[in-house]
Amino acid sequence: DFTTKDKIIVGIVGGDGIGPFITAEAQRVLEFLLADDVKTGRIVFKIIDGLTIENRAACGKAIPDDVLDELKTCDVILKGPTTTPREGDPWPNIESANVAMRRELDLFANVRPVCVPEKNIDWTFYRENTEGAYAVGSKGIHINDDLAIDFTVTTQDGSDRIIKAAFDYAEKSGKNKVTVVTKANVIKTTDGKFLDAAKAIAKNYPTVEMDDWYIDIMTAKLVDEKRRSSFKVMVLPNLYGDILTDEAAEFQGGVGTAGSANIGKQYAMFEAIHGSAPRMVTEGRGQYADPCSIIRAAGMLLEHIGYQEKAEMLQKALDICGLYEKKLVLTGRETGATGAEYADYVMETLSDP
Amino acid sequence: DFTTKDKIIVGIVGGDGIGPFITAEAQRVLEFLLADDVKTGRIVFKIIDGLTIENRAACGKAIPDDVLDELKTCDVILKGPTTTPREGDPWPNIESANVAMRRELDLFANVRPVCVPEKNIDWTFYRENTEGAYAVGSKGIHINDDLAIDFTVTTQDGSDRIIKAAFDYAEKSGKNKVTVVTKANVIKTTDGKFLDAAKAIAKNYPTVEMDDWYIDIMTAKLVDEKRRSSFKVMVLPNLYGDILTDEAAEFQGGVGTAGSANIGKQYAMFEAIHGSAPRMVTEGRGQYADPCSIIRAAGMLLEHIGYQEKAEMLQKALDICGLYEKKLVLTGRETGATGAEYADYVMETLSDP
Ligand SMILES: CC(C)[C@H](C(=O)O)[C@@H](O)C(=O)O
Ligand SMILES: CC(C)[C@H](C(=O)O)[C@@H](O)C(=O)O
Repeated sequence: DFTTKDKIIVGIVGGDGIGPFITAEAQRVLEFLLADDVKTGRIVFKIIDGLTIENRAACGKAIPDDVLDELKTCDVILKGPTTTPREGDPWPNIESANVAMRRELDLFANVRPVCVPEKNIDWTFYRENTEGAYAVGSKGIHINDDLAIDFTVTTQDGSDRIIKAAFDYAEKSGKNKVTVVTKANVIKTTDGKFLDAAKAIAKNYPTVEMDDWYIDIMTAKLVDEKRRSSFKVMVLPNLYGDILTDEAAEFQGGVGTAGSANIGKQYAMFEAIHGSAPRMVTEGRGQYADPCSIIRAAGMLLEHIGYQEKAEMLQKALDICGLYEKKLVLTGRETGATGAEYADYVMETLSDP
Repeated sequence: DFTTKDKIIVGIVGGDGIGPFITAEAQRVLEFLLADDVKTGRIVFKIIDGLTIENRAACGKAIPDDVLDELKTCDVILKGPTTTPREGDPWPNIESANVAMRRELDLFANVRPVCVPEKNIDWTFYRENTEGAYAVGSKGIHINDDLAIDFTVTTQDGSDRIIKAAFDYAEKSGKNKVTVVTKANVIKTTDGKFLDAAKAIAKNYPTVEMDDWYIDIMTAKLVDEKRRSSFKVMVLPNLYGDILTDEAAEFQGGVGTAGSANIGKQYAMFEAIHGSAPRMVTEGRGQYADPCSIIRAAGMLLEHIGYQEKAEMLQKALDICGLYEKKLVLTGRETGATGAEYADYVMETLSDP
């Protein structure tokens, strides 16, 4: 519980590409909203700038040791996108920094809200964030030149804690419905375990209805205008959560509009769900990167550390500014607003909504 | 090559639930279209009715041995949906008959077209059909009560043959573009192998453009009206193919509207991609089951055995009748047409388009 804490350390991790540009704007907005508590020293920002692809490549690790130590001194982290090396890139084939951070800090709940009132969409996804197809990282096996194997790992505790988090939220928010998404008709051992865990836990929540669907048909149901509004809270193993939340975010305007909370027992990390867009930076357009998604993530961070009211103010301001941003583009400003102009407008809107 | 064959044996597998109802209607349509060649004995239908959940449960096998022997006497198979047991069902936890048949008959290419001209959609999916997350069937391991493991298996040959099939089709159809969909940024070993295989094969097709995307963002791109028409031919590992084709079919009117071809070197099987809807049968509404999807599959079967012209006639008739079916529902006929009425209308339309 953060309300009783004297000091909250907020780590700011720029990441790669457009990351440092947009995180700086999100930090400005946080400083603006938390000005009083920054002055008293209750809120302390800590810039962690070592999580770059260059540093990671140099030490061959998804997270350099000194960066991991720094991360562990923070109570909460706001993180910009990081580049995941792919074949053909000049970097060694190291694991995604996102995936490694989620595991190293045991951030087991990836919570992603998607809300589009005019489409009757109000979804909250609880994605399991540390195991499943992501559990063993890059440690699959090339048995020989012909045969490659990867592993999916599901534990009882790992399933229980994310499923409980989803049911707790469904109960306290009054949404009272949880949909469990697996592919237990084929991936019987691990997804079967996850589904069984959900059925057992559901018994402890008599006011919450549970249903379950397979991930294939679930991607179709989100498209179906008649059926999609029946879904409220969804809980999914890691890979299905990854897939379904990108599709879902598209109905809200794309992955660039969605924030993502990665929550564990000890730490919590908030991020945009889009990529690091390195080309924007090499082409000199980094200052035009849209900070909307990471500012949404900053709003989730505020809520997490106990500033509910300010979090709501910010979400409302973003709803207004989202439209403004579109207007700037529509009225012919080639590149839209810069990230700084956008953040300024968010702060003006906060002062005078 | 079927054109030089004196005799083609077409197996008809009813399956479970509404399966026998709709397959019978599809067979009537095939008999109507192939009447001449049925008379001469070139086309022989062979009813295989042992692939029921009761039989499978009794012998504890996804496909009873005698049924598998019968299937192997056929050149092509038209298959109704089969029930996959789930927990709580009165059946033992045997593997899906679909999945087993694809593997036992080595039907490595699952080809699923989705075409919606008015939405500018013309997609053909080449789903790898025998390996990936489906390779080891129900043989995942419960290490102990807390820990479950499943396996994903990708082979060089298994990747090469499906990727080549996709590129061959892209070349000969003049679509000239293949999109490879993986999650190689996380599932690095197996999906990495698949993606590498695609890059190597692409070099042999200088006229075909290749791009690649991750499955998460791909589900978003299909929703995006501006970007989705840029996709033509997609090739995917098994699980992503399963997921993305259900989403894609939704734009065409749902999984009930899509046919699916499962093609191997020796055998080929054609099926609807919807389920067996056992409740329709227990509630006495089996005759109202919509045979549209399985008749589409029958059209793919016709094309496969060398009756291109008849296949096209049938696809056109189905496009016309699809509208008629909707009209029946809209004008207030509670249950719509029966499957038999629908098949009759398809045949009338074939006689007088
Ligand atoms: C960048 C990638 C490793 C990551 C994931 O797969 O989880 C991203 O897609 C996400 O959803 O946060
Ligand atoms: C029924 C199920 C086993 C099957 C699959 O997962 O392949 C189905 O969803 C499909 O797409 O044909």
